[in-house]
Amino acid sequence: MEAQFLQWLYERLPPHRHLKIGAGDDAAVIAGLSSRGTVITTDLVSDGVDFRLGEVDPRRVGRKALAVNLSDLAAMAAKPQAVVVAIALPRLGTEEALALAIALYEGMLPLSEELDVPIVGGDTNTHDGPLVLCGTAIGAVSERGPLTRHGGRAGDRLLVTGTLGGSLAGHHLDFMPRVREALLLHESYEIHAGMDISDGLALDASRLAESSGCGAVLDVDRVPISDAARNMAEPLQRALGDGEDFELLLAVAPGEAARLLDNPPVACGLTDVGELISTAGLWQRETSGEVTPLEPSGWLHR
Amino acid sequence: MEAQFLQWLYERLPPHRHLKIGAGDDAAVIAGLSSRGTVITTDLVSDGVDFRLGEVDPRRVGRKALAVNLSDLAAMAAKPQAVVVAIALPRLGTEEALALAIALYEGMLPLSEELDVPIVGGDTNTHDGPLVLCGTAIGAVSERGPLTRHGGRAGDRLLVTGTLGGSLAGHHLDFMPRVREALLLHESYEIHAGMDISDGLALDASRLAESSGCGAVLDVDRVPISDAARNMAEPLQRALGDGEDFELLLAVAPGEAARLLDNPPVACGLTDVGELISTAGLWQRETSGEVTPLEPSGWLHR
Repeated sequence: MEAQFLQWLYERLPPHRHLKIGAGDDAAVIAGLSSRGTVITTDLVSDGVDFRLGEVDPRRVGRKALAVNLSDLAAMAAKPQAVVVAIALPRLGTEEALALAIALYEGMLPLSEELDVPIVGGDTNTHDGPLVLCGTAIGAVSERGPLTRHGGRAGDRLLVTGTLGGSLAGHHLDFMPRVREALLLHESYEIHAGMDISDGLALDASRLAESSGCGAVLDVDRVPISDAARNMAEPLQRALGDGEDFELLLAVAPGEAARLLDNPPVACGLTDVGELISTAGLWQRETSGEVTPLEPSGWLHR
Repeated sequence: MEAQFLQWLYERLPPHRHLKIGAGDDAAVIAGLSSRGTVITTDLVSDGVDFRLGEVDPRRVGRKALAVNLSDLAAMAAKPQAVVVAIALPRLGTEEALALAIALYEGMLPLSEELDVPIVGGDTNTHDGPLVLCGTAIGAVSERGPLTRHGGRAGDRLLVTGTLGGSLAGHHLDFMPRVREALLLHESYEIHAGMDISDGLALDASRLAESSGCGAVLDVDRVPISDAARNMAEPLQRALGDGEDFELLLAVAPGEAARLLDNPPVACGLTDVGELISTAGLWQRETSGEVTPLEPSGWLHR
């Protein structure tokens, strides 16, 4: 299986200007990276936890394994440079295993091309367990430095890209990591702090606030709720608590936020959902103005 | 479990000069890498295939997950810069899961320190399967450039570090990746080609030869056989065919090889086991001088 698969793969991995030595040696060699620093992140997804192989096209699974890592680069506003992917296939017949490995890559390769980040290495084997994919992405720190969670200030507006909630209906497999949006926003605007929303807006807003030595108030009536969440019970709770939105959460000074919202530079939408405050904790504000504590009950990793 | 584990871990991850932003943000940021290029490699190990968790100390498992990746950097004679590790734990009770995650890191941290390569990020979760660890290592290309498989020439001697065979008796868990040896040899001597022996000398020698457009003859009576293999049936076959030696295989011009062997600069030993020839294929030469085809029947990845 491995030899057949590698032959298939080597024919489809396009050359890339970042790549000096590609597949076929002990490791890949990529061109020198930014002297400003390199962002590195790894994420593992597994059948039964992060997807259900029996219920979805494996192309979407491969795509997700790549996308979650690229979302972490977006969270740091880093420019993707290269990814490697290790795959543990479940024990299957040779033909079936080959078809699965190929389908996973058929999901990864188009996203890799779209975001101009080469898959430079991998490790595809079989093991006594469910399908596991482990991606690692490296990116170049931008001229402005990395976008971190800790630069927010009391008074900053909290902005989110896209819409939130109901990811399990499909978005968690098909989302587009906000790589371009993060680079554009970080380059052209003064963003104090940022992250990707992977565990739900409430929990992740509380994390960003805490990292910045602040609290956060969410204007819950303004939270942009996805169509998927609107079709579920308690749409707002889904938008606040569901995981895997993979949208950006940004802390921006009020004037800069107004400039951004007046003429949003990103097609995915940008919504003001609240602000950082000097009082620690997470709070919600209703349209009436009433402020009450909000439980940061996001999707905790099991 | 995750919060407790991360608290434990963050207290034990030492600061490192390579690290600009460590654990706690969306991704790690390491200092700018060599302009000569960056080596990147990933390897996944899984319970039941690469180790048996019920039979070994999990510290040795964690150590192996790190060591196999560092061996791939050694294979390219790259200087380790950083590693990230994703772990999928089997479903266990909270206490047991915490103890396992800690033990895995207790195996990784000393090796990380010994070889001066920081663990800069990770992803530790639980899934519906056996223990899986996926490491990714990045390294800086040395001043001489990467050590590749394709620079060998007919007439080159084939040298190996250490001794070979019988790795399953314990070496596959406890080996020291030949990072320092590779750097020293590549820096001070003219090594035409090199790799790490992960699938057995016979198979890997045939690969190095093929990548270099050559064939290879192994002087089978000279192959350094490990004590572990000597205690097994057919020691030579084990030294030729067992996987996971993680020693270096190097192709070196005869004069340079003589200089190396006269006064070996590495404590692990260095043995001349054959040569590259212009005729394709893998061959064995007995002490009598008789040359016959040798099946490259190494340990093929399942």
